[in-house]
Amino acid sequence: MLTPNQTALYRNPTAPIEARVRDLLGRMTLREKVGQLNQRMYGWNAYRRTPSGFELTEALHAETERFAGLGALYGLLRADAWSGVDHATGAGAADSAALADLVQCHVVDNSRLGIPALFVEEVPHGHMALDGTVFPVNLAVGATWDPQLYEQAAAHAAAELRSRGGHLALVSALDIARDPRWGRTEECFGEDPYLASRLTEALVRGIQGNPGDLFAPDKAPVVLKHFAGQGATTGGRNSAESELGPRELHEIHLPAARAGVRAGAAAVMAAYNEVDGMPCSGNRALLHDLLRQRWGFEGLVMADGLAVDRLARITGGKVSAGALALNAGVDLSLWDEGFTHLEEAVERGLVSEQTLDAAVARVLRLKFRLGLFEQPYTASPLPPPSVGRDLSTALARAAVTLLHNNSGVLPISPTATRIAVLGPHAATTAHQLGDYTAPQRPGTGTNVLDGLRRLARPGTDVRHARGCALTGGDISGIPEAVTLARESDLAVLVLGGSSARTPETGFAANGAAQETGSEMTCGEGVDLASLRLGEAQYELLRAVSATGTPAIVVLVQGRPHAVPEAADLAAALLTAWYPGPWGGDAIAEVLLGHAEPVGRLPVSVPRSAAQLPVYYNHKDTEYGSYVDESAEPLYSFGHGLSYTTFAYGPPRLSGRTVEADITNTGQRHGRSVAQLYLRRLRTSTPVWPRTLELHGFQAVDLAPGETRTVTFSLGADLHGTVVEFRIAESAREALTTAPTQSFTAPEETPR
Amino acid sequence: MLTPNQTALYRNPTAPIEARVRDLLGRMTLREKVGQLNQRMYGWNAYRRTPSGFELTEALHAETERFAGLGALYGLLRADAWSGVDHATGAGAADSAALADLVQCHVVDNSRLGIPALFVEEVPHGHMALDGTVFPVNLAVGATWDPQLYEQAAAHAAAELRSRGGHLALVSALDIARDPRWGRTEECFGEDPYLASRLTEALVRGIQGNPGDLFAPDKAPVVLKHFAGQGATTGGRNSAESELGPRELHEIHLPAARAGVRAGAAAVMAAYNEVDGMPCSGNRALLHDLLRQRWGFEGLVMADGLAVDRLARITGGKVSAGALALNAGVDLSLWDEGFTHLEEAVERGLVSEQTLDAAVARVLRLKFRLGLFEQPYTASPLPPPSVGRDLSTALARAAVTLLHNNSGVLPISPTATRIAVLGPHAATTAHQLGDYTAPQRPGTGTNVLDGLRRLARPGTDVRHARGCALTGGDISGIPEAVTLARESDLAVLVLGGSSARTPETGFAANGAAQETGSEMTCGEGVDLASLRLGEAQYELLRAVSATGTPAIVVLVQGRPHAVPEAADLAAALLTAWYPGPWGGDAIAEVLLGHAEPVGRLPVSVPRSAAQLPVYYNHKDTEYGSYVDESAEPLYSFGHGLSYTTFAYGPPRLSGRTVEADITNTGQRHGRSVAQLYLRRLRTSTPVWPRTLELHGFQAVDLAPGETRTVTFSLGADLHGTVVEFRIAESAREALTTAPTQSFTAPEETPR
Repeated sequence: MLTPNQTALYRNPTAPIEARVRDLLGRMTLREKVGQLNQRMYGWNAYRRTPSGFELTEALHAETERFAGLGALYGLLRADAWSGVDHATGAGAADSAALADLVQCHVVDNSRLGIPALFVEEVPHGHMALDGTVFPVNLAVGATWDPQLYEQAAAHAAAELRSRGGHLALVSALDIARDPRWGRTEECFGEDPYLASRLTEALVRGIQGNPGDLFAPDKAPVVLKHFAGQGATTGGRNSAESELGPRELHEIHLPAARAGVRAGAAAVMAAYNEVDGMPCSGNRALLHDLLRQRWGFEGLVMADGLAVDRLARITGGKVSAGALALNAGVDLSLWDEGFTHLEEAVERGLVSEQTLDAAVARVLRLKFRLGLFEQPYTASPLPPPSVGRDLSTALARAAVTLLHNNSGVLPISPTATRIAVLGPHAATTAHQLGDYTAPQRPGTGTNVLDGLRRLARPGTDVRHARGCALTGGDISGIPEAVTLARESDLAVLVLGGSSARTPETGFAANGAAQETGSEMTCGEGVDLASLRLGEAQYELLRAVSATGTPAIVVLVQGRPHAVPEAADLAAALLTAWYPGPWGGDAIAEVLLGHAEPVGRLPVSVPRSAAQLPVYYNHKDTEYGSYVDESAEPLYSFGHGLSYTTFAYGPPRLSGRTVEADITNTGQRHGRSVAQLYLRRLRTSTPVWPRTLELHGFQAVDLAPGETRTVTFSLGADLHGTVVEFRIAESAREALTTAPTQSFTAPEETPR
Repeated sequence: MLTPNQTALYRNPTAPIEARVRDLLGRMTLREKVGQLNQRMYGWNAYRRTPSGFELTEALHAETERFAGLGALYGLLRADAWSGVDHATGAGAADSAALADLVQCHVVDNSRLGIPALFVEEVPHGHMALDGTVFPVNLAVGATWDPQLYEQAAAHAAAELRSRGGHLALVSALDIARDPRWGRTEECFGEDPYLASRLTEALVRGIQGNPGDLFAPDKAPVVLKHFAGQGATTGGRNSAESELGPRELHEIHLPAARAGVRAGAAAVMAAYNEVDGMPCSGNRALLHDLLRQRWGFEGLVMADGLAVDRLARITGGKVSAGALALNAGVDLSLWDEGFTHLEEAVERGLVSEQTLDAAVARVLRLKFRLGLFEQPYTASPLPPPSVGRDLSTALARAAVTLLHNNSGVLPISPTATRIAVLGPHAATTAHQLGDYTAPQRPGTGTNVLDGLRRLARPGTDVRHARGCALTGGDISGIPEAVTLARESDLAVLVLGGSSARTPETGFAANGAAQETGSEMTCGEGVDLASLRLGEAQYELLRAVSATGTPAIVVLVQGRPHAVPEAADLAAALLTAWYPGPWGGDAIAEVLLGHAEPVGRLPVSVPRSAAQLPVYYNHKDTEYGSYVDESAEPLYSFGHGLSYTTFAYGPPRLSGRTVEADITNTGQRHGRSVAQLYLRRLRTSTPVWPRTLELHGFQAVDLAPGETRTVTFSLGADLHGTVVEFRIAESAREALTTAPTQSFTAPEETPR
């Protein structure tokens, strides 16, 4: 019988990690090993608040006892409607480290070999804990086209996470938005694999820091979600099947994961969905053959919540489901029963102990890389909250995307002295936050009304009427809004959707949201067929437009909605996505011209759900319009206006380098996001090409009259292909008006 | 130099076909061989009408001379807006054989070796020639669930084709309707691979007759269209890409082709679309590895029109495009330039003469199998037109599908003495015919007004108002319709879509139809995003319903439209699809109860385009509703009411045989279509199962009170799978209320 040994090799911090892992593994019982692969408990059930702090629950005691330790604990600090944790019951910035340490102390004490637990936390756009900095959602990040800024935000989130006692950061990054009906579109960086790849790399760098064996105390291993193809589920229905083929998967849905793995991501999460029949959590071809063997990924694969148990649908039982997942390549399960029976699975010969050991080694390796055996407790200071706020606001500002601007109604003229701020989103921050956000303390953040009141010229009369409800048919406020609009020089209508969960919506089954009177139209499990805003919002727009007062529409949303009315009726149209708590400041700055609009669409904006799918990089087939509607989007991928104008010179090719001169031809400073698109003219294999593929982008800040040159390198992955490239400000411009230049890539050098 | 030889082996009708092919091939020049692979000319350009008959054009002379013969000629008898052929210019029943013989005589005389041409004709729902019998479109055939009846109709079409001088019958059969926006949905047998497979088998049997080397004089080789996956093109856009994976392709889109090949189909047409990047016309894995090698298909592969030339998009030129297609497995091209350069392709080494010879052999083999060397001219008599009309009407009758029938408003009560027949489809047959239909002689066919006037009890006052336009916003006729409805006991509204091409729409680019004022909303290249009927039709329905007179809605359509208003407002709702010329009789018979409604939905009827895709056999994932709409269809696959009611006893299992007792529990004779569905509970590979799969169907005619037993065999393809089966009257009933029984299939016997 092995016993714990304070002088054992695995306890030696100077020994190589692999040697420590092997040593520790050799000392563990099968049961202890199985414990390391389980993350069964909801973290919020591990503790109770007491008058003086926290106490641990019987549930935690039982869980720790069951496997003589605890592999990982999910959501210890998670706060939201689902966990039921709020400011009265949960751990805030002041005491979460103490809570984490209390739990860790219990785990270590009850582990024969003193193995600490991993605390796994949701960090989709900031750590989803009370008082965590909330950043704009991923779709807004996609609109910034600014990996550097995002990397800083990610670094801040990691520092907050570690200072609060958390270890692993769960972050959505890999899902590609191909169907905006999907409620998790807000969690995607957009529809394009190249843009998503650059942002995923920035995320990994920001959260994890420099690659290396050990994580710095303010850095965290990232779990990239979800692997793979979840953005392609049928009908945009959450966790439905993906029917797509391997080429579409590889070209569109895998590049961000590949980039994340290359950047050193410590872990990925297997997706709920299946791809062409193979469920990701039980898909050895995906998790083992591709991810581990072909890509050389050495990190951890975590299952999504209860995804292992779902496999019982095909195996006929939970033990066999656990075996299928482990054999496929899943290391760590989430809430499942299936993985708790892995001892039985080994005994029945369904999995080998060797396979199980490899998974346990991956869990232990991460604990060693985090230094948890040396320092299992929280040791990193909370980063300054003002830094988080500034970064969140900066991202929100950079994400504001100007879609149209008739006769330059924006920026708001200094002569506008009366501004009506209307709409269900105008005077609340509740709908700016997005899904996977902890409850906010009252008074946190700024809405558009706040922002305009604070930033408009002194003396400007900024008045508000809600006008209508976000969902449902209540239009009783429209007359008041119309009166206000009539009396104003401008009307700013803040419209959109909402991912704000109430206790009633929580994580109820898809479709329950509306029935319980919630205004939720987006978020996980909240898929929207029509892509329509609540119809009352269009009523409000029509009524306000009819007054003749110029209407500026600002959309607060987690997906592109179908807004042809806004394109027709509004004098200007912007989308701010879910901009986070300080979105009101960011939006007001852009409206007033204190900041330039620099966001660019990371997704195509459809005219209606009837024309789905719309994405710019479809195959170059010859279809035209529908008989009743164009097949083209309302606004193209990459589109976003500035308050100035730019002229692009013709592209120049030299070797593998492409460059073009960009001139600010307007009267204001501005930023152009130059986009390099490829069009394959001839391919080395008989594969049908896409109309366009984004192959690079670069933002340039230009003063009026200034010219700068943007330079791109043509990628090394174009072997034997003849391509035509274009540099333009949107995909549509690239396809229609941009000058082209062709390039013949040399054949691949034989390896 | 070889010379023609009247005593050559290939001329010997008693020699084996393979020997004749080899002998002939050995005598041919490369140019002559290339000629056999080309079908470049539009057949209607081969002749001109003269006062006394027809004369051949210079274009035909030139084409025949170019390759010293003619491989095949497409559409010699085709008449429609695109070809410009009508009753004044084209060949009707009386003289088409003479025309065909005139052309054939020229071809044989100008071929050094006396090789006759194949005349390839469109026979999608009857021979698309002037005076050809028009049958209901495939989607209506799907609604009959009656392969035996369809086989008879197909046999009639083949006899007409051969009697008119045509040889090969191009028939849509393989496309599976997965997106009703697609304008060619009317050409599909429905959404289900099992149903489509049974109907494809019936088609092959009907057109080709008994399998054997030689075709009977009234039988024809069939070209099954399209191979493969064309029903899955993205967005329902015609000839767009199919992104689906191999499993989805094999499970849903290939079974009908497999069934057709097993039934002995002589030819298939490669589809326009690509599948996951590989264009079908250049897809060797599909055409060679799967179709020829794995399935053992020995027939001909024809390209779709200009599909070979399209491959230049990836090869960079038409010569290489031709080579790609030939190497992939295409034997006969359609209109392309690419295949005319195959000599050059051989000379440049892009294709081997051996590959080319194999393709030529397949063309020649078909000519020998047709006996064209012995009898190149038309020798088969025209079958009686009345037989065609009866079969067409029988199919139309069997296709009428009753979707709802509030308080038994149907069949029309004998007490109803005043009937208003309203709507843009009520008094015309133009929209009953579907795409790929030759112009009809005035007075051909019956519309619903005709049918009701002829069949209603003597003395019934049947009056008509059009009410509104089919498309567009003209609602000026609604007041008249409302007045008529008010004065009537019942209103029958005949609404729907149209695939009627005018000379203006022809085959203009997708989307052109509406611009030229046509009412076309369906058909090839006419894809409909919204799935909505013209909005004026809903106005008419609302206005008529508001009168309080019960409104019976009959839909004439080539796809399921989104008609939630009809479900809400109409007292009864039927769909007749495109029922063909005599659809008015068939519909009236069902409305009046002279015939029972026996049609069953071959496709799910969506609530709106926003919830697409909807098909019953999606994967069994756990998604629920959209937040704003159900994910379930308005009407389920397999659904169709009767005028009586049926009770299904529990299923009984004995060995591999399943049976159930069905009792007519109503007061009328009726037909139930018993549907056997499987639900896989455990699979031998970790593949996610579908919710349900149709595995058998059987129609039973029952007198009131009568009970019969339906018997099914469980297929041999369920190796090692645990399935639950249900016998029900629709997919929804199978999923929700039908009793279940489980079955464990034995493991596959090792081969």
